[in-house]
Amino acid sequence: MHVVVIGAGAIGSYVGGALAQSGHDVTFLARPAQYEVLRQHGLRCDKVTGKQSVSVKAVPQTQDLKPADCVLVCVKSADTEQAGRDLIPALRPDTVVFSLQNGVENAQRLESVTHRPVVPVAVYIAVSMLAAGHVVHHGGNRLVIGQAENSANNAAFFAQAGFTVTVSSHIMTVLWEKLMVNCAYNGLSALSQMPYARMMQIDGVQDVMVSLVQECQTVASALGIPSSPEIMENLFTITSAMPEQMSSTAQDLRRGKPTEIEALNGYIVRKGQELGIATPANQVILVLTRLAEKSHCLAR
Amino acid sequence: MHVVVIGAGAIGSYVGGALAQSGHDVTFLARPAQYEVLRQHGLRCDKVTGKQSVSVKAVPQTQDLKPADCVLVCVKSADTEQAGRDLIPALRPDTVVFSLQNGVENAQRLESVTHRPVVPVAVYIAVSMLAAGHVVHHGGNRLVIGQAENSANNAAFFAQAGFTVTVSSHIMTVLWEKLMVNCAYNGLSALSQMPYARMMQIDGVQDVMVSLVQECQTVASALGIPSSPEIMENLFTITSAMPEQMSSTAQDLRRGKPTEIEALNGYIVRKGQELGIATPANQVILVLTRLAEKSHCLAR
Repeated sequence: MHVVVIGAGAIGSYVGGALAQSGHDVTFLARPAQYEVLRQHGLRCDKVTGKQSVSVKAVPQTQDLKPADCVLVCVKSADTEQAGRDLIPALRPDTVVFSLQNGVENAQRLESVTHRPVVPVAVYIAVSMLAAGHVVHHGGNRLVIGQAENSANNAAFFAQAGFTVTVSSHIMTVLWEKLMVNCAYNGLSALSQMPYARMMQIDGVQDVMVSLVQECQTVASALGIPSSPEIMENLFTITSAMPEQMSSTAQDLRRGKPTEIEALNGYIVRKGQELGIATPANQVILVLTRLAEKSHCLAR
Repeated sequence: MHVVVIGAGAIGSYVGGALAQSGHDVTFLARPAQYEVLRQHGLRCDKVTGKQSVSVKAVPQTQDLKPADCVLVCVKSADTEQAGRDLIPALRPDTVVFSLQNGVENAQRLESVTHRPVVPVAVYIAVSMLAAGHVVHHGGNRLVIGQAENSANNAAFFAQAGFTVTVSSHIMTVLWEKLMVNCAYNGLSALSQMPYARMMQIDGVQDVMVSLVQECQTVASALGIPSSPEIMENLFTITSAMPEQMSSTAQDLRRGKPTEIEALNGYIVRKGQELGIATPANQVILVLTRLAEKSHCLAR
C-alpha cells in the first residue's frame, strides 16, 4: 500500500518505519532538515531487540505528495489544521485518514479541514527522537483504533506491521482516558525533568495527579463522556511499566520546542471555563508550562 | 547597642549592615564560608545610591556569641528551631528577639524554643546575595514591627538605621498578607525563572495568582485571620514596583539550594488539610517546587 505520514516526529517515525519494514511504500512529509536526513540515510530505529534501518521516501513540500491508500497524521495538536491542508494532495476518494495524536479533538479538527471522515487512533508507545531520522523505542506497542466502515482492514493493516491492535466502538472514552493520564503525568514530568518512577517518590505528587484527574473527570462527565472507575488504578501502573520514561512535554521543554500543553491541560481548562467548572490544578500546570516554554529555563 | 544577627543571608546582611553603619556593634552568627569573608572583608552592600562597605563582627559557632541588647533572626523558615537554640548564648533577661522571616509561624516557633517573647517583623525589602558577604539592594526599605512592651524603642532602633518603620497591633494580619503575596509570586517566578513584569504578561498568570490567593484567604478566614479587601489590588502593584525582581525562591532554585516553599504554599496546604479546605492550586505549586529542588533542573 502507498502510505503517507504527515510529520516525522517520534510517533510518525516509529509507526511509519514499522509500516515500511512490513513492506509498504511509505512517504513522509517532513521539514527540510528531516527531509534531507530521511532521503540520504533512511530511518533509524533503536529498539530493545536491536537497531534497525529502513529506507523510506520523503518529500519536503505538500505538492510533492502523491495520492495514497492511507494517510497517518502524526503532528502535534497545534499543527493539526495545517496538517489537514497539507495532506489534501494525498487524498483519493477511498484514502483512509488516521489521526495518531494526543488530545481528543484532532480527528474532528482534521475532518473540518479535509471534509472527510478521519479515524482516531489512541497510541500507547513510548518513543523519543535522538536526532532527525533517528527514533528510540522505550516500550509499548499498542494502538486502539476508532470503529469505522473498514475497521477489520484498518486493524489488519497495523497488526501486520507488528502492532497490538484493538478496535474500539468507544474511541472518545479511550482518547479521554489517555488525555487524563497525559494531564496527570506530562506537566509534572516536564517541569521537574524527572523520569516517572523518581517523580512518584516525592511527597504530594500522587495527590496532585489525583486532583488533576478528578478535574478532568468532572469536565468529561459534564460533556457526557463516561470514564472507567479503574482510571485511578491504571494511572499509577504506568510508572511501573515505564519507570525511566519522561513525558513528551519534558522532551519538548528540554529542546526549547513548543509543547502540546494547550491540547492537554489547556483543553481541560478551556472546557472547564465553558462549562463553569473550576480546574485550578490543571490551570497551574498549564500556566507554568507556558511560562517554561517562554523562558526556556529548562532548555539544554 | 550590641546586636546579634542569626543568619548572613540577604535580609540578615542588609539589615545587619544598616544597623552597623548607624553605629551599632553588630555580630553575625555565620556559616564557615560566610564567617571567613565577613571577618576578612566586612560586609559589602550595593545600593542604587552607591556601593558601601562596613566592618562587622562574625562568629562561626554559637558558643562564641556574647549577651546582646537584641537578636535578629534572619534564617530560612526550615532553620527556625535551630536558630532558636543557637541564639540562647546571646540572651540576657532584657534582650529583645526579633524574627525577620517569611511565613506566619516563625516568631511562635522561636518562642517555643527560647521560652521568651519574640517580636515578629514583616520585611518589605528586595535584596539578593551576589556572593558571601556581598548583598545587593533592589528596592524597598520598609519594616512592620509587631506591637510589644517596648514598641517605641524598637521602632526608633530600626528607624535610626534608615528603615521606614510602622508598628502594627495586627501583625498576624500583616504577616498573612505577605504570606499570600509570597504564595502568589514565589513559586511562579521560581519555576519559570522569570522576573515579575515578564511573567505577568503570560496568558493565565494573573488568574493563577488570584486562585492561589483565594485559597489562602479561605484558610486564613477559617483560622480567624481577617484579610483586607485590597489584597487583590495590592497583589499586582508589586509588579509595577519591582518589575525586574525575581522571588527568593527563584534565587534558591537557581543556586540549587532548598527553598522556603514548605513555609509558604506548604503552610497553606497543611492548614487546609487540617481544616478540610481544598487548596489544589497551592498544592501544585508546592509539589512542583519540591520536584525542582530534588531534580536541580533549574540550578545554574
